Amino acid sequence: MSEKTIPYKIYLEENEMPKQWYNVRADMKKKPAPLLNSATLEPMTLEELSGVFCEELAKQELDDTTAYIDIPEEIREFYRMYRPAPLVRAYCLEKKLGTPAKIYYKFEGNNTSGSHKLNSAIAQAYYAKKQGLKGVTTETGAGQWGTALSMACSYFDLDCQVYMVKCSYEQKPFRREVMRTYGAHVTPSPSSTTEVGRKILAEHPGTTGSLGCAISEAVETAVNTEGYKYVLGSVLSQVLLHQTVIGLETKAALDKYDITPDIIIGCAGGGSNLGGLISPFVGEMLRGEKDYQVIAVEPASCPSLTRGTYAYDFCDTGMVCPLAKMYTLGCDFIPSANHAGGLRYHGMSSVLSELYDQGLIEARSVEQTEVFAAAEEFARVEGILPAPESSHAIKVALDEAKKCIETGEEKTIVFGLTGTGYFDMYAYEKFHDGAMSDYIPTDEELAKYREKLPKVER
Amino acid sequence: MSEKTIPYKIYLEENEMPKQWYNVRADMKKKPAPLLNSATLEPMTLEELSGVFCEELAKQELDDTTAYIDIPEEIREFYRMYRPAPLVRAYCLEKKLGTPAKIYYKFEGNNTSGSHKLNSAIAQAYYAKKQGLKGVTTETGAGQWGTALSMACSYFDLDCQVYMVKCSYEQKPFRREVMRTYGAHVTPSPSSTTEVGRKILAEHPGTTGSLGCAISEAVETAVNTEGYKYVLGSVLSQVLLHQTVIGLETKAALDKYDITPDIIIGCAGGGSNLGGLISPFVGEMLRGEKDYQVIAVEPASCPSLTRGTYAYDFCDTGMVCPLAKMYTLGCDFIPSANHAGGLRYHGMSSVLSELYDQGLIEARSVEQTEVFAAAEEFARVEGILPAPESSHAIKVALDEAKKCIETGEEKTIVFGLTGTGYFDMYAYEKFHDGAMSDYIPTDEELAKYREKLPKVER
Repeated sequence: MSEKTIPYKIYLEENEMPKQWYNVRADMKKKPAPLLNSATLEPMTLEELSGVFCEELAKQELDDTTAYIDIPEEIREFYRMYRPAPLVRAYCLEKKLGTPAKIYYKFEGNNTSGSHKLNSAIAQAYYAKKQGLKGVTTETGAGQWGTALSMACSYFDLDCQVYMVKCSYEQKPFRREVMRTYGAHVTPSPSSTTEVGRKILAEHPGTTGSLGCAISEAVETAVNTEGYKYVLGSVLSQVLLHQTVIGLETKAALDKYDITPDIIIGCAGGGSNLGGLISPFVGEMLRGEKDYQVIAVEPASCPSLTRGTYAYDFCDTGMVCPLAKMYTLGCDFIPSANHAGGLRYHGMSSVLSELYDQGLIEARSVEQTEVFAAAEEFARVEGILPAPESSHAIKVALDEAKKCIETGEEKTIVFGLTGTGYFDMYAYEKFHDGAMSDYIPTDEELAKYREKLPKVER
Repeated sequence: MSEKTIPYKIYLEENEMPKQWYNVRADMKKKPAPLLNSATLEPMTLEELSGVFCEELAKQELDDTTAYIDIPEEIREFYRMYRPAPLVRAYCLEKKLGTPAKIYYKFEGNNTSGSHKLNSAIAQAYYAKKQGLKGVTTETGAGQWGTALSMACSYFDLDCQVYMVKCSYEQKPFRREVMRTYGAHVTPSPSSTTEVGRKILAEHPGTTGSLGCAISEAVETAVNTEGYKYVLGSVLSQVLLHQTVIGLETKAALDKYDITPDIIIGCAGGGSNLGGLISPFVGEMLRGEKDYQVIAVEPASCPSLTRGTYAYDFCDTGMVCPLAKMYTLGCDFIPSANHAGGLRYHGMSSVLSELYDQGLIEARSVEQTEVFAAAEEFARVEGILPAPESSHAIKVALDEAKKCIETGEEKTIVFGLTGTGYFDMYAYEKFHDGAMSDYIPTDEELAKYREKLPKVER
């Protein structure tokens, strides 16, 4: 098909939207390591997991053999309100750069949560409702997940209790107001409403919080409240499963125009967006059908893949969660408060960690000033104001497109544009004022946290 | 075509997007009254208008006979980055309300300006660039127009000077930051940087500003600065012309599924969104082909159509602009600072004023607390967080859909959802806290401003 016929935005028809999620674990010969009960060091059972999570979600968490899982019709109905997300050909950016590369981005920001998080939020709220729960608890970092879950809970008439990382709560007062519009209750974390919160506050007075702390508080509240379960916006295999709607749509849109990407790029905090975007492509790699260059981009201030250790660790700071084998900086690593936006998680999804360990994906870390410069460069030509998280992927996409100028290669680059930055103007302001700092943890600091990793031989 | 086949979102293909704007004035037997030179009281000439506006835009302002005007390819290229806008079937809202009505909304919020304003901004920036200008000046109220123009100017490498109504500037600090990201310079209005600003500040110390003031300052700066012209985001016939891309897309999407609306609803401040949405439909009414119920919705705090006078008036508070015949509250009417968001303009586009006078459209005014309640009701089922301006249309659409529950009529309702409320969380917060007030001007107040209208007999 001639290039002229590729539109600026490829939208799938409603009947072309995925009807099943794709479970990449089914195609992995070496599976991601199981979650372990931290007391017994034995793999978590369905019964144990169901104490914290909705039962159906616990099943999805454990299922590493079923390749395709049906998306319930009620969820597909909600997806139809804001999906399909467009796959955008960045013609204007290509022209401005003067690159022979062809750049595409899958834009997940066209919904009120401002990100891809809604894809899993609606699934988790649906299963909670189906199980007859009164409500759910969760944590939120930058606020995208909390907003998404508030929207999903409001749609299914569920109560929603959100622990929001304190530094985001303070930098983004309007995020709280959006969640409130959708009826959620938001508490800055660490808080004095939980035992683990009080403990963290006592040990680290003045802490600006972290996802790890907020997770501990949300889990404690869920476990102690009748009719509530805990839901999580990233890291877990169930979340990556729901997010494959991103990758499946992307692949369907590319296939429609016979486009084969050379490079696939996504930002990585806990891994939900990257995992969702790349799963169908990595599946082809695992089955020996195709080969792609897959790049995970993480902040230099929280470099779990590029400088972490592949080991069992707690998913949360309070150590109330099971142990997961992942690339981790240590569960009490708290990234510099200078770092804006999300991607502040100390570990990386077990699925992505295993793929990274097997050499199927590579990782790069980037500093935040260069990330915001890339964001502004992108915004000025492509119109969209990107979230700081998404801009990590933009930075590397621009790097790769600029390399093509030198080499003359007409590479096809696909990246995930996970969301919009409307609630991140405080960070943009710092960038404009030249007041943004690039704090990178030293080797000594990282070693200190590494030494504290639990000693688990498996 | 059976109803089952209508998707949640109707997207046009790129090749179905409008290639021409539609000039409704060409089909009006009685034309809107011409702009007058305030000194001579004679119709403004092309030469006079070109002193303030770009020449091509001045031509469009005066042209009331050409029905279709080509959209230059450079503008269509930009349109392709964020358009077509979806026409959404509000299935979830219909179900929640239990109404037999069929509700559609044209959603213009899927771009970084957060509204439809970008449709005219890119056109005006294009003509400014083509004329070889260095930059443009403008005013912005809620900030949507300023953001849109910043984006458009950044795309064409033009300088952008924005006078922002002071109360918005203070309530929406992050709006300024978005404009800064796109390279614009933003000044709160009234300011001491212009003669008219200093005069207004002297006469009304502590004023929170108005669109009328900001327009005066922007015009003064444009006229006094070499290489600069003034551009305006609403009210003018040229702006309504560019905005017909909304109505043309809406009509094409409806036609594709053989849908004929009974009621078409839009919010109205200066009239750009409403005029753009309804023009192709009103054209059919003017040509005697079809009949629709068209409803303009305005805030009760600034009721130019429902309580204003149809008379010649200044477009700006500083009286530096030409006179326009319009429904007006008087050019120094300043709406209560309690009123959130845009729609704060004292008058109404000449085109819409004339259509209203001819009885082709009707008008309703609504109070802001009920508007925010409608906004929240809508957000919770349809996901999208609407702008306060757009929510005026939502309020009346909900009213009409609820009437259908009583009467059992299966009316087809189409409304314009002009934008998103991400930068209006301050107003949402007030609403949530029960601190929002509904100030409606008294008859005595309105009479005071009416007496000051210029005496022009034409």
